[in-house]
Amino acid sequence: MSETRVLEIRRKALEANEAVARRLREGWENTLVLNLISSPGSGKTTLLEATVSRLREEYRIAVLEGDVETERDADRIRALGVPAHQILTGGACHLEAKLVEKNYREADFGDLDILFIENVGNLICPTSYDLGEDFKVALLSTAEGEDKPFKYPAIFSKAEVSIITKADLLPHLPFDVEAVREQISTLNPSGRILLTSTLSGEGIDQWCDLLREKLGDKRARSA
Amino acid sequence: MSETRVLEIRRKALEANEAVARRLREGWENTLVLNLISSPGSGKTTLLEATVSRLREEYRIAVLEGDVETERDADRIRALGVPAHQILTGGACHLEAKLVEKNYREADFGDLDILFIENVGNLICPTSYDLGEDFKVALLSTAEGEDKPFKYPAIFSKAEVSIITKADLLPHLPFDVEAVREQISTLNPSGRILLTSTLSGEGIDQWCDLLREKLGDKRARSA
Repeated sequence: MSETRVLEIRRKALEANEAVARRLREGWENTLVLNLISSPGSGKTTLLEATVSRLREEYRIAVLEGDVETERDADRIRALGVPAHQILTGGACHLEAKLVEKNYREADFGDLDILFIENVGNLICPTSYDLGEDFKVALLSTAEGEDKPFKYPAIFSKAEVSIITKADLLPHLPFDVEAVREQISTLNPSGRILLTSTLSGEGIDQWCDLLREKLGDKRARSA
Repeated sequence: MSETRVLEIRRKALEANEAVARRLREGWENTLVLNLISSPGSGKTTLLEATVSRLREEYRIAVLEGDVETERDADRIRALGVPAHQILTGGACHLEAKLVEKNYREADFGDLDILFIENVGNLICPTSYDLGEDFKVALLSTAEGEDKPFKYPAIFSKAEVSIITKADLLPHLPFDVEAVREQISTLNPSGRILLTSTLSGEGIDQWCDLLREKLGDKRARSA
């Protein structure tokens, strides 16, 4: 197959995805929706556990968990008393809006204040697919190395919030936080950057405050 | 586009890839070729630095470095006096045989004993693409969490060797090495599993011995 034909197929797939994402976004007028993207093991589910534990009394929260295989991540959220629905992609390396729409309907969460969509563990493929979210959140763990934003510029350019996770490992690792902040700021001058650790609790309050602020802004705009 | 049509396009792409991979494999009759696959930041380049530092006097070695962006990884290998050629995929989440063939020709490494192909940092997409290698090596760092083999079963089923990296972080992490070994052994009963740390040197001798053994086996077969 020619390169042109491949690009044409890809363009059509992304256009079809955009149409569904627009429909999802219209339906989520009063819900703050986040699309969490990172490599496997950067700590998406662990951050969500810490987040829903703090916010579950304050807000109506639910989680859509994207994975290639296993129901483990949804089970971890449900164990905290927060509704979660697992989306299995059957081998695909990212979520698409159509799959999110189908699973969101099946999940039947009711009215929500915050919906977290945890994408498949992958720094590349999920970047191009709009899921109807308010913004993307990119996670990078300190154990992954300080060269990553410039090596995976697409996601760090697009994510409104970047979170450096596993700050508790910094004493044991060669990882220059300032160098990483600089790379992310170069790619995305208006993006927010947080440094967190679910073990020590560092940065989790700021993250929860950011969610409160974003939800407030969204409701003020739609009011 | 219908699901059937998507599957048909994918099947054709994989068939075309297989044909090129067969041609590459025939050309590498006397060279041990490895395809290294992991998430970003699991330590592929760092393992290669440690490996070529130990083996560069003993063998003719070269490295093909797959990345979405930047020449950084190839620069790190070249700094050790070992030839390396960067393959930039321009956004694609995996290497394909055709791209490897084109870049291998351009690199013009001459006769080699061992060729390492470092795939794009991604646990999903590279799994289906044969690059003409003798075997795939899957890397998983202790910082990524102990649930990963069952969450990404395809690569751990296919990799003849799985390497658990960053063993030096074990005292600071919740990571049960035996549980991970069990998952990998379930997925791949005949696979080899190594535990390594480039910081402490743990497991690096065994890894180099494994490469010597595999190269010896290959040359005995082709003799």
